[in-house]
Amino acid sequence: MMRNVAVIGYGVVGSGTVELFERNREDICRKIGRDCDIKYICDLRDFPGDKYEDRLIKDFNIILNDDEIEVVAEVVGGATFAYDYTKKLLERGKSVVTSNKELVATHGAELLEIAKEHNCNYLFEASVGGGIPIIRPLNKCLAGNKIMQISGILNGTTNFILTKMIREQMDFESALKMAQELGYAEADPTADVEGHDACRKICILGSLAFGKHIYPQYVHCSGISRITLDDVEYAENAGYAIKLVGTAKPEGDGRISVIVCPRLVPKSNLLSSVDDVYNAISVTGDGSGDVLFYGRGAGKLPTASAVVGDIIDCLKHQGRIIMIGWDDCTDKSYVVPYKTIENNMYVRIKAADAESLKPAVSELFGKVMYLERNGRPDDELAFITPRMVEGDIDANLEQLSASASIESKIRLL
Amino acid sequence: MMRNVAVIGYGVVGSGTVELFERNREDICRKIGRDCDIKYICDLRDFPGDKYEDRLIKDFNIILNDDEIEVVAEVVGGATFAYDYTKKLLERGKSVVTSNKELVATHGAELLEIAKEHNCNYLFEASVGGGIPIIRPLNKCLAGNKIMQISGILNGTTNFILTKMIREQMDFESALKMAQELGYAEADPTADVEGHDACRKICILGSLAFGKHIYPQYVHCSGISRITLDDVEYAENAGYAIKLVGTAKPEGDGRISVIVCPRLVPKSNLLSSVDDVYNAISVTGDGSGDVLFYGRGAGKLPTASAVVGDIIDCLKHQGRIIMIGWDDCTDKSYVVPYKTIENNMYVRIKAADAESLKPAVSELFGKVMYLERNGRPDDELAFITPRMVEGDIDANLEQLSASASIESKIRLL
Repeated sequence: MMRNVAVIGYGVVGSGTVELFERNREDICRKIGRDCDIKYICDLRDFPGDKYEDRLIKDFNIILNDDEIEVVAEVVGGATFAYDYTKKLLERGKSVVTSNKELVATHGAELLEIAKEHNCNYLFEASVGGGIPIIRPLNKCLAGNKIMQISGILNGTTNFILTKMIREQMDFESALKMAQELGYAEADPTADVEGHDACRKICILGSLAFGKHIYPQYVHCSGISRITLDDVEYAENAGYAIKLVGTAKPEGDGRISVIVCPRLVPKSNLLSSVDDVYNAISVTGDGSGDVLFYGRGAGKLPTASAVVGDIIDCLKHQGRIIMIGWDDCTDKSYVVPYKTIENNMYVRIKAADAESLKPAVSELFGKVMYLERNGRPDDELAFITPRMVEGDIDANLEQLSASASIESKIRLL
Repeated sequence: MMRNVAVIGYGVVGSGTVELFERNREDICRKIGRDCDIKYICDLRDFPGDKYEDRLIKDFNIILNDDEIEVVAEVVGGATFAYDYTKKLLERGKSVVTSNKELVATHGAELLEIAKEHNCNYLFEASVGGGIPIIRPLNKCLAGNKIMQISGILNGTTNFILTKMIREQMDFESALKMAQELGYAEADPTADVEGHDACRKICILGSLAFGKHIYPQYVHCSGISRITLDDVEYAENAGYAIKLVGTAKPEGDGRISVIVCPRLVPKSNLLSSVDDVYNAISVTGDGSGDVLFYGRGAGKLPTASAVVGDIIDCLKHQGRIIMIGWDDCTDKSYVVPYKTIENNMYVRIKAADAESLKPAVSELFGKVMYLERNGRPDDELAFITPRMVEGDIDANLEQLSASASIESKIRLL
């Protein structure tokens, strides 16, 4: 019996990984063509009476120093301890697979390089889109393409909240509360709601697709907490659904644009039909055209599915590099400033006599499309601007703010 | 300069493969970490003035005997010459990648075995779903799952025809004619319209997912040529779209059910929203849950995208087996007879006084759901049966046929 796998972190994803691996172990052995099993589960907590209590350890060094261990699933999360663990394991030539998007987004280029130097693998299919296969398809199946655009609904919590707002006219606060009650949102929902989680994921996808590391701190990121039911209704009436979307796109000059923000997604785009906690990623290749991947973006077993898939790939290719990695990027201007990117913009304003501002709006923006909603009050106007550089839109809104209050500003996809 | 790639067949997919490979060759070299290029394009026809005329050859043996060639794209199609070519190439240790679903569905197990024996690869991402990554995700990303079900819209031609019937109330014959005019359907549309093309594809997916070769001749397969606009309207009113779906599912006793046929797909299922020539494949894993892959299922560059992806993977892993293959299967009872499978069934009947047959219908089927359409004539009834073994449904319909004519019988998904 080969016991060549270890799991670090016995929380939701860790226990799912152990459960799925053990359930399908016979099949897994057939697939890799040899025996395998989980030897250690490392966690600082006690789990008295746990089915796998005999494999639980607290000292990470036992794993590091055990030559039988070929692959380690790091499902601890965070970018401090996990960084240290991962580095040490890779330096010993042990492959590491992970669901830790924070770590990949922060140190991915470095860790991939270390893995390469030590002839082992660092795989992270579980870091984006939970159970949805996206990393490997992008890295392998679409490798013959120039990627023209990636757009994704990458966070299940915010998509659940927006779905409740769209389908049941629940306001943001109530929908968030419901998400928390159902266990979809954490007590402190900032990372989800403000788009930081989605930001890490689009950085990983963009790094992979365009070959250079994209650091989250250079990415413009805004969340969904200021979206109102009025915005949802205006959008709906005009044939759009509001979704939190991460986009990454080459600008043609060697630089890229990467943004995470709510967007008005046209109903003709399948992303607009992605509801509840589901995620979806649309990739446009110069050969493949639009390809879409859809499924459960989080959760115990879906995420475990991706972790176990990576474990199998590592075991099957022990001692050989299987990923096409990406380079580090020290160029701070690689990600273009979002103010220089062109967008159509949805704008909602308030002013005592809003109708009277229409000539001023036309003068500033040219031909805009006005939107309607049931019982639109006289002091409100909502419109979609022509495609313009965002800095120019903002300058116009600044001027407009002398006579109106700018309530909402949401980009179109 | 390494010129290590050859392409056999310079038709639509072959020329797309050459075009995409050459366009992105610099990037491809970076990805595989060494030089590569296409050395030969083999086709019996002449292409005077072609951009790559200097690489065109007519003698397959030149490729076979050239030690520089590591990977060959077989995009000829058919299961006779292509079978012979592929076997010889693999026996020389040259990897083969293909879009040839007929060959993979007929001889896949054998060719994978030959590749394994000769330490090279036989890859066929392009054989199912054109540009949609599905083979590798199923083979790798979802390898940790027990696959519970695969359902796919696998043929773009029939999906285009059904979309025209659903969205524009065009009848089957007119929609087929339009598909032919647009180049989506061949002059002899039998293979598409009768489901044979979709059948080969679900056989490939099922073989991969369940580990044993599924031969198309054992699969029950029916097409869309008998579907009427009346059926489309009844289905629409009840919240379903009619789609040609291939399904494969383990029966729990080591056998599997595989069927290709039109189905009433509930609007809540994303497959019902897949329109025009697009394809989509839904895979349910015991860990991942439902995962969906969507994109262009055919066409020059989308299919080339998959072929080139496979070429890159072969070049990157020269001399190492990268696929998890499947076993041959000589057991003729591996695929269960479709008559023994349970389904809900949509049925449309005609009889002089159709209403008067309702008691007889109830007696035969128990509680059925009657469907409506605008101006339903008095001599027509449409209903959905409870879930029953198909053989029993047929026996009941046989009885009913004494007093009514059975016009349509379509399974629900």
